[in-house]
Amino acid sequence: MKKRNFPLSKAYRLLEPGPVVLVSTAHKEKMNIMAMSWHMMMEFEPPTIGCIISNRNHSFDMLRKSKECVINIPTVELAEKVVRCGNTSGQKIDKFKVLALTPVAASHVSAPLIAECYANLECKVVDTRMVNKYNLFILEVLKAWITPSEEPARTIHHLGRGLFMVAGETIKLRSKMK
Amino acid sequence: MKKRNFPLSKAYRLLEPGPVVLVSTAHKEKMNIMAMSWHMMMEFEPPTIGCIISNRNHSFDMLRKSKECVINIPTVELAEKVVRCGNTSGQKIDKFKVLALTPVAASHVSAPLIAECYANLECKVVDTRMVNKYNLFILEVLKAWITPSEEPARTIHHLGRGLFMVAGETIKLRSKMK
Repeated sequence: MKKRNFPLSKAYRLLEPGPVVLVSTAHKEKMNIMAMSWHMMMEFEPPTIGCIISNRNHSFDMLRKSKECVINIPTVELAEKVVRCGNTSGQKIDKFKVLALTPVAASHVSAPLIAECYANLECKVVDTRMVNKYNLFILEVLKAWITPSEEPARTIHHLGRGLFMVAGETIKLRSKMK
Repeated sequence: MKKRNFPLSKAYRLLEPGPVVLVSTAHKEKMNIMAMSWHMMMEFEPPTIGCIISNRNHSFDMLRKSKECVINIPTVELAEKVVRCGNTSGQKIDKFKVLALTPVAASHVSAPLIAECYANLECKVVDTRMVNKYNLFILEVLKAWITPSEEPARTIHHLGRGLFMVAGETIKLRSKMK
């Protein structure tokens, strides 16, 4: 895998722009993938992520039981597969096989990285107190991977009902913001 | 103001792609604005938003005391003002005056809409239990406004340290996702 370590102190830069992500999980010899847009950064260090995973999703139980996942960030080339992830259930099909996505062993969690995604965040669940009320999982990023590139990643951002915005031009402004 | 009501059932479509937003608050005759990227949708109806507002921000106290805010969504034309919002503190300056932004009375909350933003979500704080530990506020959208347009909104998305991605092309895929 041509991926490099990405510093945990910069992990927020991958999620802050709001891309659709693929969440991969593993539990009892089975793996699954779901598409997710309802996530946010909560802390820089350790990088902490909040995300909503509906209890109607197969991944909800996988995550609650295994307490680990990988947040994989796809680019526009994978848009069709992202939508098929959202249109199918891991209870019925093996999404890695059906969508021809490649699971790669992670270094800190049992859930697999998705090789085709340009970045991957290995996460453990650190707080489940808001799961019952809001389906809110709080994750800590243990390890981050990125595919080195000169170009900004053409991530996709869900606008609802199968409409996606593709990341456009990048502008630089004088900011004191982190 | 040339804004129209936007259905609450579709409010998620404004935040799900992950734009930088401007949060406006009002408390005791004072108003303030802050730039924010750490937010996510938590529920479709009633539209519920989670967001992280650091207790180092002046808006933290404004929001905790008033329990109301407006989430205003700027487009790229406002990028310089968004950055200046992030570089200054409402404890020292009146951001509406200094940045030449126009406060407009909201219909359901005391916090003002920012007229120059293409969409505005009037919100009340509905859960503060995670504020002490995570600076996490949970908001319910009471009313949504949009400036009608044929073109997709050119929102901005923070990549860290003053780098922003501007919303690019829109693609449509066959999705069963909401």
